[in-house]
Amino acid sequence: MTDPRLAAWRERTDAALAQALPDPSVSPGRLHAAMRHAVLLGGKRMRPLLVHATGALLDADTALLDAPAVAVELVHAYSLVHDDLPAMDDDALRRGQPTVHVAFDEATAILAGDALQSLAFQVLAGAPGDAALRGQLLATLAGAAGASGMCGGQALDLEATGNGGSLTVADLERLHALKTGALIRAAVRMGALAGGGDEDTLARLDAFASALGLAFQVRDDILDVEGDSDTLGKTVGKDAEQDKATFPALIGMQASRDRLDELRRVMDEALAPFGERAKALRSLGRLAVERDR
Amino acid sequence: MTDPRLAAWRERTDAALAQALPDPSVSPGRLHAAMRHAVLLGGKRMRPLLVHATGALLDADTALLDAPAVAVELVHAYSLVHDDLPAMDDDALRRGQPTVHVAFDEATAILAGDALQSLAFQVLAGAPGDAALRGQLLATLAGAAGASGMCGGQALDLEATGNGGSLTVADLERLHALKTGALIRAAVRMGALAGGGDEDTLARLDAFASALGLAFQVRDDILDVEGDSDTLGKTVGKDAEQDKATFPALIGMQASRDRLDELRRVMDEALAPFGERAKALRSLGRLAVERDR
Repeated sequence: MTDPRLAAWRERTDAALAQALPDPSVSPGRLHAAMRHAVLLGGKRMRPLLVHATGALLDADTALLDAPAVAVELVHAYSLVHDDLPAMDDDALRRGQPTVHVAFDEATAILAGDALQSLAFQVLAGAPGDAALRGQLLATLAGAAGASGMCGGQALDLEATGNGGSLTVADLERLHALKTGALIRAAVRMGALAGGGDEDTLARLDAFASALGLAFQVRDDILDVEGDSDTLGKTVGKDAEQDKATFPALIGMQASRDRLDELRRVMDEALAPFGERAKALRSLGRLAVERDR
Repeated sequence: MTDPRLAAWRERTDAALAQALPDPSVSPGRLHAAMRHAVLLGGKRMRPLLVHATGALLDADTALLDAPAVAVELVHAYSLVHDDLPAMDDDALRRGQPTVHVAFDEATAILAGDALQSLAFQVLAGAPGDAALRGQLLATLAGAAGASGMCGGQALDLEATGNGGSLTVADLERLHALKTGALIRAAVRMGALAGGGDEDTLARLDAFASALGLAFQVRDDILDVEGDSDTLGKTVGKDAEQDKATFPALIGMQASRDRLDELRRVMDEALAPFGERAKALRSLGRLAVERDR
């Protein structure tokens, strides 16, 4: 069963996000409205939940977790805004809502994404806690967001689009390790840093996060084949249409499911030494593997 | 005459930028190459020079100035990449080179801009000096880059484009205070923070920076009317073509020149108490007002 704290952390994150985002009644109102549209209209809050669940596992002060939870979600949200642009994936629907460039316009979507990224670092730079922790959180998030992380993965994805067949499974796993994995690992690492985790603990939790990131993506690929647009809140079948490399395309549906099972075992193993304390993290791992949206 | 240290700081900045940017021979090479194209092919390095000149005025340790100098230029460079996109200003020429989306493609330009912004914060998060200073630098840059700074100014500019006649001079000055001014002020503030400036010094240097930022923009508007594309390295006459609000359009050419003279006096006054120590900053103020590119 799902850890009941997840719902509370989700609410807490939504409130903190609403608080951090600029007021749409203040100029430039259209930019502010677009930023809020990108962040507040839905989303699973997987990354903030990972921050909180990891922090809770290490008995972190909850007050230290809000800033990294908000910051990682802002980076995620900005990446979706830019990813949906006509020049990128050209998606009109996201989280069951029109994407930002559809609801507003393309220029505003570019700027809103840019401003969300700045805001992420602004939130972290103004976070409570000591300056050394703040520096570690900032270095973690900035490293995960950039060319050696999420943006790098997006670039690999671009190179692969329309060219899906030429990738190996190893290429595809590397692509996802950067595109989705880097930010998920950063979420877990920031929670662990706020909880004062030692190197061993950080490494073990990173193994969990890497498996979860990949599992999340394998499940995403499966859902793009057999999911439901209404449930997902986004268009299905886009991957095949764009000849994107996906796990089902490269290794077939059954092998993709087997890979998910394997990743589930890796996650269980990484969390085993933490026992009951890892209950929330374990729930999140299960959600990544079993979700239908 | 120009302070001879400016050339040395410019070279130092170029070397630090080349060092901070990812290697194009490493995957994803196309993204890395686009990032380097955006940053390394020209540029006046006005903002890094302001960091160094302000730091030097306060006898800052030069080693503390490289990271903020690099970071502010990376933010500036990313903003140009996104500003040049077809959905924004649709510019094909920048610094005498094809813009990033022309030399590469639109998706790569969006990602390269995104990754440059991340890199700016990564560089600052990894800067030398104590953690408290690093936090101040990060907060300064993130605040200046986002919705209440540069991105906000860009959004105001979007609102004004095609609608230039309806702005007042006060609106236009606010637009530029955000769009160009925020980052220029951040550059000066970061230099001053690295030099351990007290509140009075910070306020005085901020008055200089605000005037310089506005002067830079007034000069930009004048150059767009009477400048030379070859010298400027970008297309002239774009502002009028796009019905952008500019100082010459709103108040005429002579009043624009008078405003420049006034801003020059404000800069001189703000720097007067520093005497000879402000020589480099004074040179930069003069360049902003007198530049022909």
